[in-house]
Amino acid sequence: MLSTTARTTLRRSKDRARTDRADLYAILDAGLVCHLGVLAGGSPMVIPTAYGRIGDTLYLHGSTGATSLRAALGAPVCVTVTHLDGVVLARSAFHHSVNYRSAMVYGLARLVDDPEERLAGLRAVTEQLAPGQWDAVRLPDRKETAATAVVALSLEEASVKVRQGPPKDDEEDYDLPVWAGVLPLTVSWGAPEPDPRLAPGIPVPPHIGNRQPRL
Amino acid sequence: MLSTTARTTLRRSKDRARTDRADLYAILDAGLVCHLGVLAGGSPMVIPTAYGRIGDTLYLHGSTGATSLRAALGAPVCVTVTHLDGVVLARSAFHHSVNYRSAMVYGLARLVDDPEERLAGLRAVTEQLAPGQWDAVRLPDRKETAATAVVALSLEEASVKVRQGPPKDDEEDYDLPVWAGVLPLTVSWGAPEPDPRLAPGIPVPPHIGNRQPRL
Repeated sequence: MLSTTARTTLRRSKDRARTDRADLYAILDAGLVCHLGVLAGGSPMVIPTAYGRIGDTLYLHGSTGATSLRAALGAPVCVTVTHLDGVVLARSAFHHSVNYRSAMVYGLARLVDDPEERLAGLRAVTEQLAPGQWDAVRLPDRKETAATAVVALSLEEASVKVRQGPPKDDEEDYDLPVWAGVLPLTVSWGAPEPDPRLAPGIPVPPHIGNRQPRL
Repeated sequence: MLSTTARTTLRRSKDRARTDRADLYAILDAGLVCHLGVLAGGSPMVIPTAYGRIGDTLYLHGSTGATSLRAALGAPVCVTVTHLDGVVLARSAFHHSVNYRSAMVYGLARLVDDPEERLAGLRAVTEQLAPGQWDAVRLPDRKETAATAVVALSLEEASVKVRQGPPKDDEEDYDLPVWAGVLPLTVSWGAPEPDPRLAPGIPVPPHIGNRQPRL
C-alpha cells in the first residue's frame, strides 16, 4: 500500500487515486525521465532528468557541479513521473481534461557514498533509459564515477493518480450536438539512427532494435 | 532574446542553451502539459498540469481548492515543459543521454482577477489542449468560472535547453565494437475514441480528426 500522509492523500477527484504500490512501480518503470523539484535560492526549480528504480529506492544522477543536485542533497525534494495517454474532449470547456498516469514521490534526497550502491544506482539509471545497455558498453571509469553524483530517494512517501476513460459531462450537456470522446496519444520508438561515426559492420543489437514501447 | 539571470544561464553543457525567444515559444506551443513546481509546506511539489500561452504570459488553471494553485499564488514558481525526442546510446555508459527540448520559466504566480483576462486565460488553456474546441463547445458558465482559479506567469525569466544529434563519446572509445546512435521517440495521435454516450449522427470534427502531431 502507498503512504497516506496529508500530501499524498487526494482531497479532490478521489476516484483518480491509486493506493497500490504496484501502480507506483508500473508508472515509474514505464518512464524515461522524471521532473525533479528542488528548492534553490528560495524558489522551486523543476528539472527533467533521468532516473532508475531498485526496489523502493529511486536513483538520480548528474554532474557533481549541477546546481539542481547540489540543492537537492539532504533537502526535501519531489519527483514526478507523468505519462500522457490522451486528451479528453468534453461537451463543455469546463470538463476538458487529459488521461494520464502520474506518480509523485516526496522525501529527503540522500547522496550515495557507498561505491557498490553508487554503481548499482548508475546501472539502474542507464538501464531505465536503455535496457540491456549496461552489459553492452564501456562501464564508468574512476574519473567518470568521481564526476558523477548519485542521489537516492526513498519511495516511502508517494502518491499515484490515474485518469482514464471518456469525458464526464454535466447531465444536461449530453444532449448538445457536440462530438465528445478521447483523442489518444501514443509514444513509439522510431528506427535506430546510427552514429555517423559508427564503425562499419556493427549491427543494431536486438535490445535496441526490438525495443518494445513501454510508455 | 531570453533572460540572462543567474538561474537561466547554463553553467555546463553550454552548447545546449538557446537564447532566442522563438525557441521558448516553439517548445511551449508544442506541449500539452507542463510540470509546475511550487513550495508547499516547506517542500517542493511538482504537479503535471495544463497550460496555455498568450504572448509573453503563461496561463494555468485549476480548482480554487487545489493545494498546488493556492501554494503558487504570489509565490515563486517554476514551470517546465519537456519534449523527449530520443535516447542517445553511446559507446560508454557515462555518455548515455537523451535528446530533448525543454523550457523552464521562473516567476511569481499572479491570480488573475479581471474577468476578460480570466476568460482569455481559460480559452488559451483549452485551445492548447485541443485547438478549435473553444468555439465548438459550451463555454464556462458563472458557476464554473467561479470554481476555477486562473493563474498567470510572465515569460520574462526563462531558459531553453535543447540536445540533438548523435552521442559524443570519448575519442578513444570510437574504436569499440559497440553500436552507437539514437533511438528516436515519436508521439502521435491515435484514432478518436467516441464517448459511449455520444448521440448518434455526430461526426468527428476536422479539428479533432485531422489533428497534426506537434510534439
